[in-house]
Amino acid sequence: MLSPTELGGIRRAIADAGVDGWLLYDFHGINPIAASIAGISGMVTRRYLCYIPRDGNPVAITHAIEQGPWEAWPAEWPKLVYSSWRDFEKALADVVGGKRVAMEYSPGDAVPYLDRVPAGVVELVRNSGAEVVTSADLVTRIYAVWTPENVASHQRAAEHLARIARNAMALAGERARAGRPMREFELATLIRKEFAEAKLFTDHGPNVSVGLNAANPHYEPTEENSAVINDGDIILIDLWAREADGVYADQTWMGSLGPASSENVAIWETVRGARDAAITLLRERIGSGRPVTGGEADDAARNFITERGFGKNFTHRTGHSIDSRELHGSGPNIDNLETRDVRVLLPGVAFSIEPGIYIPGQVGMRSEVNGFVADGSLLITPRNPQSDLLIV
Amino acid sequence: MLSPTELGGIRRAIADAGVDGWLLYDFHGINPIAASIAGISGMVTRRYLCYIPRDGNPVAITHAIEQGPWEAWPAEWPKLVYSSWRDFEKALADVVGGKRVAMEYSPGDAVPYLDRVPAGVVELVRNSGAEVVTSADLVTRIYAVWTPENVASHQRAAEHLARIARNAMALAGERARAGRPMREFELATLIRKEFAEAKLFTDHGPNVSVGLNAANPHYEPTEENSAVINDGDIILIDLWAREADGVYADQTWMGSLGPASSENVAIWETVRGARDAAITLLRERIGSGRPVTGGEADDAARNFITERGFGKNFTHRTGHSIDSRELHGSGPNIDNLETRDVRVLLPGVAFSIEPGIYIPGQVGMRSEVNGFVADGSLLITPRNPQSDLLIV
Repeated sequence: MLSPTELGGIRRAIADAGVDGWLLYDFHGINPIAASIAGISGMVTRRYLCYIPRDGNPVAITHAIEQGPWEAWPAEWPKLVYSSWRDFEKALADVVGGKRVAMEYSPGDAVPYLDRVPAGVVELVRNSGAEVVTSADLVTRIYAVWTPENVASHQRAAEHLARIARNAMALAGERARAGRPMREFELATLIRKEFAEAKLFTDHGPNVSVGLNAANPHYEPTEENSAVINDGDIILIDLWAREADGVYADQTWMGSLGPASSENVAIWETVRGARDAAITLLRERIGSGRPVTGGEADDAARNFITERGFGKNFTHRTGHSIDSRELHGSGPNIDNLETRDVRVLLPGVAFSIEPGIYIPGQVGMRSEVNGFVADGSLLITPRNPQSDLLIV
Repeated sequence: MLSPTELGGIRRAIADAGVDGWLLYDFHGINPIAASIAGISGMVTRRYLCYIPRDGNPVAITHAIEQGPWEAWPAEWPKLVYSSWRDFEKALADVVGGKRVAMEYSPGDAVPYLDRVPAGVVELVRNSGAEVVTSADLVTRIYAVWTPENVASHQRAAEHLARIARNAMALAGERARAGRPMREFELATLIRKEFAEAKLFTDHGPNVSVGLNAANPHYEPTEENSAVINDGDIILIDLWAREADGVYADQTWMGSLGPASSENVAIWETVRGARDAAITLLRERIGSGRPVTGGEADDAARNFITERGFGKNFTHRTGHSIDSRELHGSGPNIDNLETRDVRVLLPGVAFSIEPGIYIPGQVGMRSEVNGFVADGSLLITPRNPQSDLLIV
């Protein structure tokens, strides 16, 4: 990814992060972020460093016997070659001495995905006279931010998903009323056909579960093991897909075959309210230009559910990063449960918002939309998120 | 590896290391040592910890949705289950607070192979009230130490290798004198046949190089690209093999087809002298019960070569660990060049001793034997190491 044409954008991110440079370290693939940014391919068996300063050219510190992976390194950028640990440490001190550098380090392991540099290496860098801070915002900016084309493609995919989910719900209701109820797996297969017609792609899924099965958030129907969707059932559809070169949309919809019990309506209103509590916090902060972290958005949704007595039934994070390559992306997650996500939701990042309530042996419900942080505003997809339980 | 039957040996190693326990941490395979010791298989996507105290039962700290990999964990050993980072950090503090714990941490990254725990995790453990020290000696004891059966098997393999190498040298000389000189690759193929007859196995190799090619320590002959071994040539044979369930022997032998030049004799005597300087230091220290590190043995060999003006031509470490599973093992390396190997050569470890001199465009020479640290003595294999250049 690091190339003369990309360097300008990376330097701007480094300047915005308030550091002198970004120091990438890898050894035996321990830090996949380093290999990806530095553009190194294949297994590297010796330590290397790549320093990208805010000003000036990047510098690589490479081992004498492993020059092959650096063939694409531009000739005008310095590449230091070491054989001994003394030369390695001297080169490091020459390059970063007195500097404030960002590394894949997460204080107290708040975000394990970003905590990739061994303790001894951080010590060595500090002993070289550098100050080490987290590269969290750099990784977000370089890995996770969407382009305008990504946004447009995501919006198209999101509207398809909303239409397909609503239609699938309606079909399940019709078939049950007609005395020919569908199985979960059959409906999932139909949804995949709708994806194909809309020229959307997915890695797996969707997940279609009747309420009792949805109480287990890891349940997935299979051809062999799949419940019948009967009148009176609650039904959950979680579906995700993207255009050929697009980014994912990821939604969950809830329906009821016939009128829902007041208890189920209350559960639905709680997950919907939690979803909207997170959205409200995000809109307030982003709209007023104040930073907000993924952890804070998780707290907003979780507090709403906890106050209504379902806290112990909300067993996962509120949402995950969706980046330009992955459904579960490298940007900030909406999470203060599984990890302490202290990363700021910078302009350009996107994520799911999907609080859920799971009552074993009874019912599981979730509502899921996606959020994209534009400059000064929050875009929610689809255009019309689910308001009431879909009675079909 | 951690099981009720193995626990006693691991506890003794922990006591000898002067710590309260061994704290294994892993996340996404970042620390392969942890998975191997704890006996976890498959990808684990959430953080886990496994604490083995000097006294008492091991304790695992595991994620609620990843219980599968812990199926073999004995029921009588505590297994704590967490869902939130708060529970994870509380369990950690409960288990290690106030303790002195060993982790896969190498101060200043002296030994990168052992430096596997992210800086943020070490911080978190320290914030939990524990003192963190390196697990280097524990890893050596548990991974790298040979059994008496390993030693016996290695010795048998070593004598086979010495015989095969001497015979191969003699054959190359005979064929050159008879006007039917061999190619490097042909001789390597013959050596592999000899391995098979002796019921020895190898992963690849051996390496057979005439002097000019041996000047490049990465040269390996292939069927398509292989030099003729002529009268007047220096020849290097580096061969390694083991019995079916044994540990590797790894040797390098040097020969001359016809009398060697005084310059080549001087180079040979320098690598032999370096080899013997390392052996002398090791014998003195081990014989008198004083600890010696791999780095110090490297210094002894390297100083001998440097004093004779060839320091810059000795471009690799003096030797590598040979453990019970791998030719390049997990124990201390004889290295103060590539890394600063501060690990003590504890009783039971084994390694190669293989100083070399490489003069580009001219000649490369190396002498290689293996060392095993017995209680109070050093065993060198083969029984009769090479003394003079083999004139064939």
